[in-house]
Amino acid sequence: MTLLIQPVILCGGAGTRLWPESRGTRAKQFLPLAGEASLFQQTVARTPAGRDFLPPQILCGDSHVATVREQLGDREAALIVEPMPRGTAAAIALAVAQADADTLLLVMPSDHVIADVPAFHAAIAKAVGLAQQDRLVTFGITPDRPDTGFGYIASGRPLGGGGEDWGFAVDRFVEKPPLEEAERMLAAGGYNWNAGIFLFRAGRMRDAMLTHCRAIFEAADKAVAAGMRDGDALYADAIAFERAPSDSIDYAVMEREDRTAVVPVAMGWSDLGSWHAVHALAEGKDDGGNAVAGDAFLHDSRGNLVRAGGKRVSLVGMEHVAVIVDGDDILVMPLARSQDVRAAAKARE
Amino acid sequence: MTLLIQPVILCGGAGTRLWPESRGTRAKQFLPLAGEASLFQQTVARTPAGRDFLPPQILCGDSHVATVREQLGDREAALIVEPMPRGTAAAIALAVAQADADTLLLVMPSDHVIADVPAFHAAIAKAVGLAQQDRLVTFGITPDRPDTGFGYIASGRPLGGGGEDWGFAVDRFVEKPPLEEAERMLAAGGYNWNAGIFLFRAGRMRDAMLTHCRAIFEAADKAVAAGMRDGDALYADAIAFERAPSDSIDYAVMEREDRTAVVPVAMGWSDLGSWHAVHALAEGKDDGGNAVAGDAFLHDSRGNLVRAGGKRVSLVGMEHVAVIVDGDDILVMPLARSQDVRAAAKARE
Repeated sequence: MTLLIQPVILCGGAGTRLWPESRGTRAKQFLPLAGEASLFQQTVARTPAGRDFLPPQILCGDSHVATVREQLGDREAALIVEPMPRGTAAAIALAVAQADADTLLLVMPSDHVIADVPAFHAAIAKAVGLAQQDRLVTFGITPDRPDTGFGYIASGRPLGGGGEDWGFAVDRFVEKPPLEEAERMLAAGGYNWNAGIFLFRAGRMRDAMLTHCRAIFEAADKAVAAGMRDGDALYADAIAFERAPSDSIDYAVMEREDRTAVVPVAMGWSDLGSWHAVHALAEGKDDGGNAVAGDAFLHDSRGNLVRAGGKRVSLVGMEHVAVIVDGDDILVMPLARSQDVRAAAKARE
Repeated sequence: MTLLIQPVILCGGAGTRLWPESRGTRAKQFLPLAGEASLFQQTVARTPAGRDFLPPQILCGDSHVATVREQLGDREAALIVEPMPRGTAAAIALAVAQADADTLLLVMPSDHVIADVPAFHAAIAKAVGLAQQDRLVTFGITPDRPDTGFGYIASGRPLGGGGEDWGFAVDRFVEKPPLEEAERMLAAGGYNWNAGIFLFRAGRMRDAMLTHCRAIFEAADKAVAAGMRDGDALYADAIAFERAPSDSIDYAVMEREDRTAVVPVAMGWSDLGSWHAVHALAEGKDDGGNAVAGDAFLHDSRGNLVRAGGKRVSLVGMEHVAVIVDGDDILVMPLARSQDVRAAAKARE
């Protein structure tokens, strides 16, 4: 890579899939769910300033500003504060609206895990080549199972430069599939998970937005112009931003655009979308496959996830359950039922 | 009944079978494990003062005196404080040593449940007849399952007076049996569980103790004589009491004595010896068979015991587990593993 890349980190999410730890202003991305640093801190660390990357832009809501600053520590960054959540399209539009046309923006969710950062950087290098050919590039995660929780990207013809393949044209985006279709795609090959990581020239995305979702871009553009600067933070104007229709970047732009590309990459990626995933990715499990954070005593227990949250958790004869303690809340469920945590989160919040 | 009976309530136990709620000075008998009153309070209420019963004597350790007084409230009672635990034989000897020879003593553990109190009173009336014939009477719980956790009492010939059967001579005491023997006894009939409830004339027990365990009685007798009175409490003398060999009344007296009797009774008895038993006896279970105390949210969960201990417990998709919260301790285990709670209690206490 020779050009500096502008990381754009999307920090707006909240989500209750990891309730009770993730809730309200303490969103998933700010929690140390895989290792000691939070997912947000790991995301920031993935694009170190200097050689290849500019200081990141952090897109977040007002209620997360303090947490973002605290977790950034000494790391240089700019904040773009969304007055209200309007989906990823409007959030990315805020970053695009204030960027020079030729700046390369690398858009990343802040709540994912990437174990193999060199593989990610290698994929970025390929994506840069495609973005300079004015492609909107998405990174496709090489699937290792027929997961029905992700959208899939079907690869088309190879794209590249100088005789080298950098990636593929996107043949089509596939919505979260039923299991049979997921199995078929996994067997067929040429399909990758849509992880919501993008790289593009700002001016190219600006043009695509003006074509495909003009109202979103114009609202974001005005919200930047009328925004308030406060040190390293830009507070987007609420009245202008509120007019942006709420949509995802996939629906609003990527699925409608012809000049897209996908760079497949296997990089130990996970969206940590459930306690089951947190258990699966946890390091330092004991011989019984238990992943433990905090003060836990386990007797004759296997395959559990315990996060003791400052309390003292004792398990006797338990298998494959999650016990998550946060403040006065204690969640107990089979790891296989992790998708149903919303029922408890909804009742309790 | 025409004679007044002196209830003697044994409050010395501690026990960790219901950890974490039962521990240290907060022993099982002082907890509201079945209903709103503690097991101790229910035991006291079972022998109301006035018509048939004298105010109870409470045998307890020094560390439980405050709790006993608090839970007695306005109820008149006398305390006998054991300087150290020396088993049920020495505890009962303290009560015997300070009783008139002709007083009938009704000895009861303080941590059992008796659902059918009229049936208990009817059994006491039969036992009084036998005690007046100088029998040491034990109450035998009619078994409804081949439980291996109790000792059994084999009935001998019928005993009674005026043509009426009051109970049976004891043929023999059976130690906690293996399952096959428990099943055989249940099928054969004539066997009852030994619940540790006794009725006898004080002078008769004194004589039996002097015959079978003289050292225990003499130590207790001296401990009473040298004891300190403080209002309604007698603090047994430590130097004297310490000389009493530690033994159970069953080993020290009942199994060695010829003139014993058993009064079989079905009275909804349980020793609440595990969280499994607490669940089984809990009233007000929901349609899914969940027994809940405190703030619990259950989604798609069946047959669980949740005691939230001031916290907020959420269960999703769980079946047949106990979740017991006490202070900072949280215990999670299958109800079927309740016997193994000691592993956690031992590690944590």
